[in-house]
Amino acid sequence: MLLEHINGPKDLKNLTVPQLDELAAEIRSFLIEKLSVTGGHLAPNLGVVELTLAMHYLFDSPTDKFIYDVGHQSYVHKILTGRKDQFDTLRQYKGLCGFVKRSESEHDVWEAGHSSTSLSAAMGMALARDLKGETNKVVAVIGDGALTGGMALEALNHIGHEKKNLLVILNDNEMSIAPNVGALHHYLSKIRTDRHYQKAKEELNQFLKKIPAIGGTLSKTAERLKDSVKYLLVSGILFEQFGFTYFGPVDGHDIPQLLEVLEQAKNATGPVMVHVVTTKGKGYSPAEADSHKWHGISPYKIESGQVLKAVGPPMYTEVFSEALIDLAKEDKRIVAVTPAMPGGSGLLKFAELFPGRMIDVGIAEQHAATLCAAMAMEGLKPVYAVYSTFLQRAYDQVVHDICRQNLNVIFAIDRAGFVGPDGETHHGVYDIAYLRHVPNMVLMMPKDENELRRMMKTAVDYNDGPIAIRYPRVNGVGVEIEKEMHPIPIGSWETVREGDSSVILAIGPMVAVAEEAAEQLKREGQNVRIVNARFVKPLDEAMLLQLAKEGQSMIVLEEGSEQGGLGSAILEFYSQRGISGLNIRIIGVPDVFVEHGSIKEQRQETGLTAERVCKELRALKPVLRQRANGTA
Amino acid sequence: MLLEHINGPKDLKNLTVPQLDELAAEIRSFLIEKLSVTGGHLAPNLGVVELTLAMHYLFDSPTDKFIYDVGHQSYVHKILTGRKDQFDTLRQYKGLCGFVKRSESEHDVWEAGHSSTSLSAAMGMALARDLKGETNKVVAVIGDGALTGGMALEALNHIGHEKKNLLVILNDNEMSIAPNVGALHHYLSKIRTDRHYQKAKEELNQFLKKIPAIGGTLSKTAERLKDSVKYLLVSGILFEQFGFTYFGPVDGHDIPQLLEVLEQAKNATGPVMVHVVTTKGKGYSPAEADSHKWHGISPYKIESGQVLKAVGPPMYTEVFSEALIDLAKEDKRIVAVTPAMPGGSGLLKFAELFPGRMIDVGIAEQHAATLCAAMAMEGLKPVYAVYSTFLQRAYDQVVHDICRQNLNVIFAIDRAGFVGPDGETHHGVYDIAYLRHVPNMVLMMPKDENELRRMMKTAVDYNDGPIAIRYPRVNGVGVEIEKEMHPIPIGSWETVREGDSSVILAIGPMVAVAEEAAEQLKREGQNVRIVNARFVKPLDEAMLLQLAKEGQSMIVLEEGSEQGGLGSAILEFYSQRGISGLNIRIIGVPDVFVEHGSIKEQRQETGLTAERVCKELRALKPVLRQRANGTA
Repeated sequence: MLLEHINGPKDLKNLTVPQLDELAAEIRSFLIEKLSVTGGHLAPNLGVVELTLAMHYLFDSPTDKFIYDVGHQSYVHKILTGRKDQFDTLRQYKGLCGFVKRSESEHDVWEAGHSSTSLSAAMGMALARDLKGETNKVVAVIGDGALTGGMALEALNHIGHEKKNLLVILNDNEMSIAPNVGALHHYLSKIRTDRHYQKAKEELNQFLKKIPAIGGTLSKTAERLKDSVKYLLVSGILFEQFGFTYFGPVDGHDIPQLLEVLEQAKNATGPVMVHVVTTKGKGYSPAEADSHKWHGISPYKIESGQVLKAVGPPMYTEVFSEALIDLAKEDKRIVAVTPAMPGGSGLLKFAELFPGRMIDVGIAEQHAATLCAAMAMEGLKPVYAVYSTFLQRAYDQVVHDICRQNLNVIFAIDRAGFVGPDGETHHGVYDIAYLRHVPNMVLMMPKDENELRRMMKTAVDYNDGPIAIRYPRVNGVGVEIEKEMHPIPIGSWETVREGDSSVILAIGPMVAVAEEAAEQLKREGQNVRIVNARFVKPLDEAMLLQLAKEGQSMIVLEEGSEQGGLGSAILEFYSQRGISGLNIRIIGVPDVFVEHGSIKEQRQETGLTAERVCKELRALKPVLRQRANGTA
Repeated sequence: MLLEHINGPKDLKNLTVPQLDELAAEIRSFLIEKLSVTGGHLAPNLGVVELTLAMHYLFDSPTDKFIYDVGHQSYVHKILTGRKDQFDTLRQYKGLCGFVKRSESEHDVWEAGHSSTSLSAAMGMALARDLKGETNKVVAVIGDGALTGGMALEALNHIGHEKKNLLVILNDNEMSIAPNVGALHHYLSKIRTDRHYQKAKEELNQFLKKIPAIGGTLSKTAERLKDSVKYLLVSGILFEQFGFTYFGPVDGHDIPQLLEVLEQAKNATGPVMVHVVTTKGKGYSPAEADSHKWHGISPYKIESGQVLKAVGPPMYTEVFSEALIDLAKEDKRIVAVTPAMPGGSGLLKFAELFPGRMIDVGIAEQHAATLCAAMAMEGLKPVYAVYSTFLQRAYDQVVHDICRQNLNVIFAIDRAGFVGPDGETHHGVYDIAYLRHVPNMVLMMPKDENELRRMMKTAVDYNDGPIAIRYPRVNGVGVEIEKEMHPIPIGSWETVREGDSSVILAIGPMVAVAEEAAEQLKREGQNVRIVNARFVKPLDEAMLLQLAKEGQSMIVLEEGSEQGGLGSAILEFYSQRGISGLNIRIIGVPDVFVEHGSIKEQRQETGLTAERVCKELRALKPVLRQRANGTA
């Protein structure tokens, strides 16, 4: 075993090429074995084994900076930089992070989780290097999917202009998470596959060499021609036009070829792009066969590739998926839009059933939002299915294009609240805070599967502007699905448990947490009321006024930022109405970034638990009693 | 006068080409005259006179949809669609909007104000059209600067993929607001200017026609060559590669040429790009000579081009500009980054003094933010100078790249609060709400010029993460500038006026409004205390606890969204500490979009006035007295 002896990049430098090949095979086995237990981003990492080896072989990390776009393809990098013994804890609480993490290693120099940031980061590091008069290399590794993200294209444009020394490795695996969308993708396909095109260019080159021999008046033209024709001779003409020197395409699983081209690229000046073609899931047949499914995978049996699935009620994503299909059958105005997440957002079946009505725009959250705005302008009912954390990318478009023009766009905001093992870059804990202050927005969250269905119907029936439903990355509570979807009056809350002491105002999965707390307090002799505050905006003002009248102490329980969330909305409302003297406590996500682990652990860490609610209510109760006594 | 008789696009259709030329001249005179009184976006509109005429001549608005990127170049469109008599009210309160406005005309089908949204909008309209089985044309007009915005590139990629019929007119005026940045710009320049390049291609074409005659083994290659070479023969090769049919470049001031090419483009199928070269400020020599200055202009004297400037203390932008220069002289780590607004953000002098330390990335707010993150990672002190409303585009990068990694990026957020005539798309009223909930962020706002300088120094000295200063688009209060900049302790507020009844907690220009209110109330016998709550995050907790102890009624006065703003932060704080019973009222920007007018009118409309503060305090006072009596 070579891998045993690899504790840092230095241990690679003296290996022979055949040894590197051997090591690649060992790393593959290691990944396949370890991830069968922990789950994780298997396919992307199997795709970059040789590439990562070649990078660490040729460059000197951490002096040379490796910047991994998204960072889910950094496992091999972690293995090679002294972290192979921590893989049993991958993506677990206090364990190895599934993305690049600066606190883990000096070799981790840039963190991400969201796509398309690596080129901007590389450019920033190159600018800083030159201003400081240093000479290290900067290497960004970006997938072909991430390249369609607007900020990557912004960076490409800037990099081509400034001519700084930096190396971009385009990891072209012919798909991002979903099969890639867009003109750029077609362009890359053409480079990869069109042997004729390649050959014609070679022949043209040969041919042009002979032109001067033809002589006569054409010779000057021929000179100019050669300048023009150089574009043709480089298959990466698009990138050349952006100002890059282009190498490729290179077989990303052929170590000698990789070493040769990366060596050339390393010594070139200005911005360089090396186009590496890799196979996602390389070396593990189930993952090669369905790299989409195996992008991020749960624990599985190695021999069969069978994924071990937890049993339980359907995930909210599935409930959304079915409800959308039911509604779309009745209403032709409905179209679904996804930024490269048709699978994760539960739109695959929809796409099959309604051809042309599911629009995958690629990694392009901003474009997706404004596309929805325009379709709504023309009378359609676009449903923008997006993860809470990725909708952050389209905040401006939500404000400026959708809400300002008050258009009937439906937001299906998945992964709201904690998301578990993907950790701090992926939590959906800010959407309430970044959407609530935008005029015209309606924002809801369901307590169970049927309420999600009813909210979908509510949204489709609503014609007064944008409306959003946020739902968590968890299983539903297991209620029986009612086929009929009755809309919910906008801004109406419901009392789900009567009580005579304090009130818990909860949303989404926190309603169940509130129930748990109420059961405990009941045993202690306190009867707590629970309100499902399902509309974050607009609030149920009548109910809030009633609660104030009763002088109820309140706990607001929400899996979202405590700053600017539902709790704040309630405080603002009472302040606005000049109502003071109420005891209101907010239990939400505190003002910190919460690392990876299980959702349960994340809730535990931040106090989104029944125990915490009980503790707060026990503390609040005396105040209420005192007040009650006072007025008695 | 032909213009007199133009009340809608129909009135154009029977004009001859010479008459169109005559009309163009009349429109230019009209614009130059009207805008000399009102101010407005003169140069962009002088650049599109012929283009707009040609569009309305050939297409049928509003059946055919015209989508203007940003929309500041829609004045000619407004003139031609029945609004010429309203130009005396341009950009004034209740007057004609300076951008496209649906409520003004059926010919206005898509509103903007921020850049780079038009391609997404056009694509959405084309998709909707096809789903509905309609046949209208969709035409987007986008500048070369706007094309560098990430979302425009996302859209370009998607449009090239879907092959819908739509027409993009690239209005290439060789600059956006500032001279353009980026590889794309160089590419466009090359197309425009390189006659050799053009000629070489023509010659190549001629030459290739002769290839078969050379005979022999090359003939097959020649065939393939021609396929490849077609890229060369089309000057818009980059756009062709994105999947567009490209026409151009066309002289945008030559009506016959415009009509000819637009007619061809109109009849083409799939995505079409017409590259039109225009001159900003065309026909008015001062504007042609300095189209940057004349992009958006204040009232001026027509003969001399002399701009009539209001006298007064320096704008906060200028104060920022000087302070940054003073600091950068001492501290080499400081670099300034702007997304295409070096002039508006006050960085031109900085760029002259510190070559290489001012980085203009073009219209690319997202890239700019992450670029700053990476530079901070490498030990620099990047200052991201950006308008509040445009920073919305980089919300995700602020969260995910800067704050999550806790990097020392300084945000200089200009145009915070109302912005006056640019209206609802440009107000900076959400930055507190979208930044306050992000962990690690420090957010401040100065009450006067010296405090802005001190905050700049505070920010440069601060090494614990991101720090932001927001300042308004108004003149300073006129204090004498102190050269020395003393840093302010993080999270410290100051009492700027003592009083014994209620307290006003105000920030930025609202401190002066509070002073005005306090003066009035003093005449009525009430002595109001004023606190300059200059840190929105973190709060001055000691002072808040002291105020609570005193049982003070409070008004929070802020020119920002009432939802999730400073007032909410204060309510949250007291709630968290279990302090209830305080009378706190928030006066901020209510939950609506506020239209164009003067800043004074916008404050008046929303109640950000001394009168309103007095009224609220008179109402609060009795409560306080009662309480005081109760406890006495």
